[in-house]
Amino acid sequence: MRDTERAISMCHALLSERGEVSGARLATEVLAVYQSLHGQALDAFFDGLVDQFSPDPAHVRRAADAYRDDPSPGNLVRLQSAVEPPRQELFRRFNMGAGGTRALVEMRRRILHALADHPQWAAIDADLVHLFKSWFNRGFLVLQRIDWRTSALILERLIEYDAVHQIQGWQDLRRRLEADRRCYAFFHPALPDEPLIFVEAALTRGLGARVQPLLDPDSPVVNPAVANCAIFYSITNCQEGLRGVSFGNFLIKQVVEDLGREFPRVKTFATLSPIPGFRRWLSAAAHSLSDHRKATQLAALVAKLDGCDSVPQKAASARLQKELTCLCAYYLLHASPGNQPLDPVARFHLANGARLERLNWAGDTSEMGLRRSYGLTVNYIYRLPDVERNHEAYARDCRIVASHELERLARQSLLVRGAPDRSEGRFEPG
Amino acid sequence: MRDTERAISMCHALLSERGEVSGARLATEVLAVYQSLHGQALDAFFDGLVDQFSPDPAHVRRAADAYRDDPSPGNLVRLQSAVEPPRQELFRRFNMGAGGTRALVEMRRRILHALADHPQWAAIDADLVHLFKSWFNRGFLVLQRIDWRTSALILERLIEYDAVHQIQGWQDLRRRLEADRRCYAFFHPALPDEPLIFVEAALTRGLGARVQPLLDPDSPVVNPAVANCAIFYSITNCQEGLRGVSFGNFLIKQVVEDLGREFPRVKTFATLSPIPGFRRWLSAAAHSLSDHRKATQLAALVAKLDGCDSVPQKAASARLQKELTCLCAYYLLHASPGNQPLDPVARFHLANGARLERLNWAGDTSEMGLRRSYGLTVNYIYRLPDVERNHEAYARDCRIVASHELERLARQSLLVRGAPDRSEGRFEPG
Amino acid sequence: MRDTERAISMCHALLSERGEVSGARLATEVLAVYQSLHGQALDAFFDGLVDQFSPDPAHVRRAADAYRDDPSPGNLVRLQSAVEPPRQELFRRFNMGAGGTRALVEMRRRILHALADHPQWAAIDADLVHLFKSWFNRGFLVLQRIDWRTSALILERLIEYDAVHQIQGWQDLRRRLEADRRCYAFFHPALPDEPLIFVEAALTRGLGARVQPLLDPDSPVVNPAVANCAIFYSITNCQEGLRGVSFGNFLIKQVVEDLGREFPRVKTFATLSPIPGFRRWLSAAAHSLSDHRKATQLAALVAKLDGCDSVPQKAASARLQKELTCLCAYYLLHASPGNQPLDPVARFHLANGARLERLNWAGDTSEMGLRRSYGLTVNYIYRLPDVERNHEAYARDCRIVASHELERLARQSLLVRGAPDRSEGRFEPG
Amino acid sequence: MRDTERAISMCHALLSERGEVSGARLATEVLAVYQSLHGQALDAFFDGLVDQFSPDPAHVRRAADAYRDDPSPGNLVRLQSAVEPPRQELFRRFNMGAGGTRALVEMRRRILHALADHPQWAAIDADLVHLFKSWFNRGFLVLQRIDWRTSALILERLIEYDAVHQIQGWQDLRRRLEADRRCYAFFHPALPDEPLIFVEAALTRGLGARVQPLLDPDSPVVNPAVANCAIFYSITNCQEGLRGVSFGNFLIKQVVEDLGREFPRVKTFATLSPIPGFRRWLSAAAHSLSDHRKATQLAALVAKLDGCDSVPQKAASARLQKELTCLCAYYLLHASPGNQPLDPVARFHLANGARLERLNWAGDTSEMGLRRSYGLTVNYIYRLPDVERNHEAYARDCRIVASHELERLARQSLLVRGAPDRSEGRFEPG
Repeated sequence: MRDTERAISMCHALLSERGEVSGARLATEVLAVYQSLHGQALDAFFDGLVDQFSPDPAHVRRAADAYRDDPSPGNLVRLQSAVEPPRQELFRRFNMGAGGTRALVEMRRRILHALADHPQWAAIDADLVHLFKSWFNRGFLVLQRIDWRTSALILERLIEYDAVHQIQGWQDLRRRLEADRRCYAFFHPALPDEPLIFVEAALTRGLGARVQPLLDPDSPVVNPAVANCAIFYSITNCQEGLRGVSFGNFLIKQVVEDLGREFPRVKTFATLSPIPGFRRWLSAAAHSLSDHRKATQLAALVAKLDGCDSVPQKAASARLQKELTCLCAYYLLHASPGNQPLDPVARFHLANGARLERLNWAGDTSEMGLRRSYGLTVNYIYRLPDVERNHEAYARDCRIVASHELERLARQSLLVRGAPDRSEGRFEPG
Repeated sequence: MRDTERAISMCHALLSERGEVSGARLATEVLAVYQSLHGQALDAFFDGLVDQFSPDPAHVRRAADAYRDDPSPGNLVRLQSAVEPPRQELFRRFNMGAGGTRALVEMRRRILHALADHPQWAAIDADLVHLFKSWFNRGFLVLQRIDWRTSALILERLIEYDAVHQIQGWQDLRRRLEADRRCYAFFHPALPDEPLIFVEAALTRGLGARVQPLLDPDSPVVNPAVANCAIFYSITNCQEGLRGVSFGNFLIKQVVEDLGREFPRVKTFATLSPIPGFRRWLSAAAHSLSDHRKATQLAALVAKLDGCDSVPQKAASARLQKELTCLCAYYLLHASPGNQPLDPVARFHLANGARLERLNWAGDTSEMGLRRSYGLTVNYIYRLPDVERNHEAYARDCRIVASHELERLARQSLLVRGAPDRSEGRFEPG
Repeated sequence: MRDTERAISMCHALLSERGEVSGARLATEVLAVYQSLHGQALDAFFDGLVDQFSPDPAHVRRAADAYRDDPSPGNLVRLQSAVEPPRQELFRRFNMGAGGTRALVEMRRRILHALADHPQWAAIDADLVHLFKSWFNRGFLVLQRIDWRTSALILERLIEYDAVHQIQGWQDLRRRLEADRRCYAFFHPALPDEPLIFVEAALTRGLGARVQPLLDPDSPVVNPAVANCAIFYSITNCQEGLRGVSFGNFLIKQVVEDLGREFPRVKTFATLSPIPGFRRWLSAAAHSLSDHRKATQLAALVAKLDGCDSVPQKAASARLQKELTCLCAYYLLHASPGNQPLDPVARFHLANGARLERLNWAGDTSEMGLRRSYGLTVNYIYRLPDVERNHEAYARDCRIVASHELERLARQSLLVRGAPDRSEGRFEPG
Repeated sequence: MRDTERAISMCHALLSERGEVSGARLATEVLAVYQSLHGQALDAFFDGLVDQFSPDPAHVRRAADAYRDDPSPGNLVRLQSAVEPPRQELFRRFNMGAGGTRALVEMRRRILHALADHPQWAAIDADLVHLFKSWFNRGFLVLQRIDWRTSALILERLIEYDAVHQIQGWQDLRRRLEADRRCYAFFHPALPDEPLIFVEAALTRGLGARVQPLLDPDSPVVNPAVANCAIFYSITNCQEGLRGVSFGNFLIKQVVEDLGREFPRVKTFATLSPIPGFRRWLSAAAHSLSDHRKATQLAALVAKLDGCDSVPQKAASARLQKELTCLCAYYLLHASPGNQPLDPVARFHLANGARLERLNWAGDTSEMGLRRSYGLTVNYIYRLPDVERNHEAYARDCRIVASHELERLARQSLLVRGAPDRSEGRFEPG
């Protein structure tokens, strides 16, 4: 624990007078010692950050009392200062050291991973989030196009990070950066080699329904001049340590604007998205639906699907296909505990002001696509003139903007059929 | 006042749901409306920012009470959130608009100018300072060398800003960027054309005493390979709106390091600095000294100097020169109300860990040099291995590190001479 | 002359085996010694280049004889190699030294200046031109926009070089780089700080007739979005040493294309050009015209103009103005000894495929404008779809493409009036 | 053949007046048509370039006659101009088109491949080489460090081109760009994505003897701060079309200088080179040696080696190893038909001024290493102060600078042993 004590004592020095004059040097040293800590020593260091760099409760109480007695501006300022943890200033000084920003983002990643076991570290997490929301302000981010001229260092990150559709090495990536593709990322000037988030788009003729052709490294390159659609088929947050500091919203809209300028013939901007929660929800529904008849129907359907080895999309009868699609439409539109869609991807795009447009049978026939949603995919449409209105309908009134077709499908699902009105059919598994 | 109302209502929109989805666009619009406000409309806007975007006292009180009853982490977080003015988030969203950072820095400049007449705007000032300290963290600043290859846009700023020794146009600037000079500035990535602070150094043989040869556009260019000194003859903060967010300390030390690497033969890093408060202090002392005999002596001296049209340094007898130099040494070392030197330039360099080295008679014979310090200049020495220790001595013990010679001179000044001990002679005019 | 001998002997070394392995170092040394030569030593060095690095006549003769006997490919190659001066390889090796390209361009400048006195140096000139035509191929040049963000080093060159309308310092230049102006230059990668040629354009409403408003540093800035004309009011070759290696043609056309893309509303691309030879030609004509009556008329006119102190354009009667304009049209269209217009600026633009469009009375009232052309200016129009055809008409058939109005004016000039046919009126003073 | 005729006729247009004014556009068009030609059409095009764009023999003869009669400077210039093929100016105009430089380099690659079947195209080759020697002058090349921050586009070229030790994909390349490696390439500004030549170096402790550890992607990364050797283990010309326009010499010496500055502790700069011709030479020697006894010995040795499946280096007796090493030393030092070493790699490094230092048994145990040189490798040392002298000894006196050890080994080889003097033992197989 000697190292931990040394690290903590250096943190105190960094916050002191000395830190003011030798901040950068001292910060670099503290970072080095901190980065050498592991296991229990690291845990003890984080405990130390909580115990020794939090606001002083007595001091807070005095300031709060003074403010209660006289809510003057001066007393407010003193209260503000009393409640700010010294940790925040400590982290600001960390940031002066070489590699400081990166080290702090990485620190939060560690904290997030350990939070379940160390709930008291939430205080550290709160301070880091507070700083990151200020530092990673949209006004400081730089949008960069990523292509085959980009440095290998950055491209390697893309291969490493792509969470939606794993990039299978350099040849796969190369196809995704050809003339009919676009890839953009946000960067922060202090992390020039670290994409924060990136989006991959394909320029196509017609609104794509299926993921596999887009991912095929041997697919023919489309002449971008004849494209009329831009399909966002992957959007990936790269920095776990920045979770909750959201950029995706800004990124998509900025890219829609930029592509619109570069390709005036492209009129449709849409995603081709997974529906990660559908299958899990359907299974749960089959077990917990109160309407006995419908529960039985659903259970039979799920059993049939699960027994079907070679995956529904090929063998599926038109009837099964129809039934499943209607249930998926219902899931996206009405499975909304707490007034938010159950599906996380739906939540993201709908909150951004997109519109639920179309369900695609056999849209993603990968093992994961089948496991998560029986191979169904969905297109969300981004129409810039509508996003603000859509967003407000969603954020204020919990209203999901969807195509008529999708709403019709939801009404025909076995969960609604025969129900006196839609609301009765509504169902929340969890 | 219609524009003011519109601006304030747009600020509310920017803070709302809508702001989340259309932040950048909306922010750009708010900035445009705000920037069109002038006179009373602008005053009303700032008043609106104070009245409508401050914390809710009732809410703060409730959170403070809850915390007092139970100082749990959750209650602390709620209290922190209650005391943070919505203005801060508003300003963070401003920053997403085009030119947002610059507009906020400029806003603070205006606020500072008007603070005396509008003390309530201190709340706005406090929020901006809080943000700027986070945003303009040393870890985000970029040190750039400025030379004749730098863009005219940036060089023009230098001409505009140089506060210490006015740059007299492009030819003057050109001389200051020759091979025997170095100029460095800090930049923030969001303000790529705006130097935040810059320092001008001359590479010389021997420690320079006089400013005028350095400023002479026709002075011969020294071969930098034979230089053994680097003289910092000008350091200028460019952004009034960033007052109090200090960079100078970091800049000088970084430049000392860089020059030391580039020119291993340069061993002395020193300033050639003005002593802006000396003459004013001397006049005041002559009027307010309690020791009558000394007051008389001093008043005679000041009268003699003031009557002397063609400036002391030429005509001055050796005796007068000696007397004045000793008084100046005394001023720098002992005129310290509140334990800080009276002289602002001394305060800056001593707090940075520099050492008071040498006084130079006729060091600055410009009209301003004579008016402020009878033409005296002073060298502060930056020795990197000592700056931390010097800084601590100064910050912790109010001890000024100075050369023996300077301490000797101070002891010989008429304010000390004959005094039983030095402390008795100490004198604070203000 | 020791230095000269040393320089020449180093040239031999550079061409030898040693030069192959230590080319860059040796070349740098030769350049340094060469650059230290002045006066007679330099003359002797150039003489040495002619005497010792020219083809060997005996060798050439043998190769020529062999070729005459048997014009085989092998004999041709041997003859080619025999006639190439070793100087060319020497200069290619010079180019490997630090600053080599610049030194060679500067060498040619010196040679050109001295050619009249040292006609034998034409051999050096021929070699340098041959190399420069290869090295400064359009394919290697980079077009760069010059604006207020450009480095001071390059902007200083513009101030120094502007030959057409002297730039009066930095404030003047700044106006010429405002939002309603464009400045472009060609650069060669080996001379990144040296513009080769630059053109200045103004975005205007309507086709400008007068130079002075464009040059006025206090003229209001036009909103470029409403401009419908781009006026090229200055085009300047910067490198005397590259005389005869022409870029102007490429530059104007490239800029017309680029501006056309950036400002789709700009439909007219035109110059506002001086007519440097008009007045001199008119004086000469008055003395040497064979038609006695016309000579008398012309002499009277010239006498009247020359006597007129306050310049014609103000006082001029409508009749005088008309007469002079008609004569100027005649000058531009028909004063063509050797089938090329007498006026050098006309030759340049017409050879580039421009059209003679309009004469402007009082278009340039500067002292030089009056002295050279009684204040008249002319617009040449660049219409991209026509330039090739215009150029061919000019280059192949010596035909000048001009507006009807200008042709009409020429027909009405006193040199044509009453002549049975135009050709008889044709007149060549020189 | 219509396309060929069209291409040729466009070439004539490009050389004509029209080409002067519309060069860039026309050149781009000609390039496109040329690049669409294949097979016989392309052959016919090249034939056209030879037939229609060569000097006119009658014209050359007249100019040669005139010169013979009067070898004046004017007549020389006219002769020079008469012998220059119009093709050269044609190619210079090609270069104005988009991608012109690259297309010409590629054209020469094609010509070189076809030269054996179309000897008349040597005329085209000669023109292109002449231009390239001028255009790719060392003074125009830019040395760039290649590392993991370099664009994937360029890195991909390295994988594609590495001729010495094939790079096995991105992970292999990544290891070769780690902290203990350096890779540098020359670029020409007109081909920013095309390395012309690159060299790979490893920073090591001690002079490396074996290639395989250097190529092992899993080898541990050496701390470059403790390295005392830089081993150049691969040097690759990337552009076949630039064959004969040599850069390798400049590249190695420049990199030695740069590394010497960056790593002052690195004192030894050496290659670890293959000996590509050794085994072939040894086989040939066994068949053609006139000294019957030695021929028999050699043949036995070769038979033994060839029969030895599992490669000599493992099984080899110390005696065999010694014998083979001595023969290899002899091969490198004395197998010099025409006074140049037989081994092409030896020729390259010795001409650059390197010294033959050391032979390494089992230095390259790859299949190719065994096939070419029984697994032997050799180190050439680059000592900057010696390279010029070494080069001159080699170029002027055909003297190879080698270590004493290597000379000793050569003397002990069975080809020399017992010979009255060395020269008698000399042997040239072909």
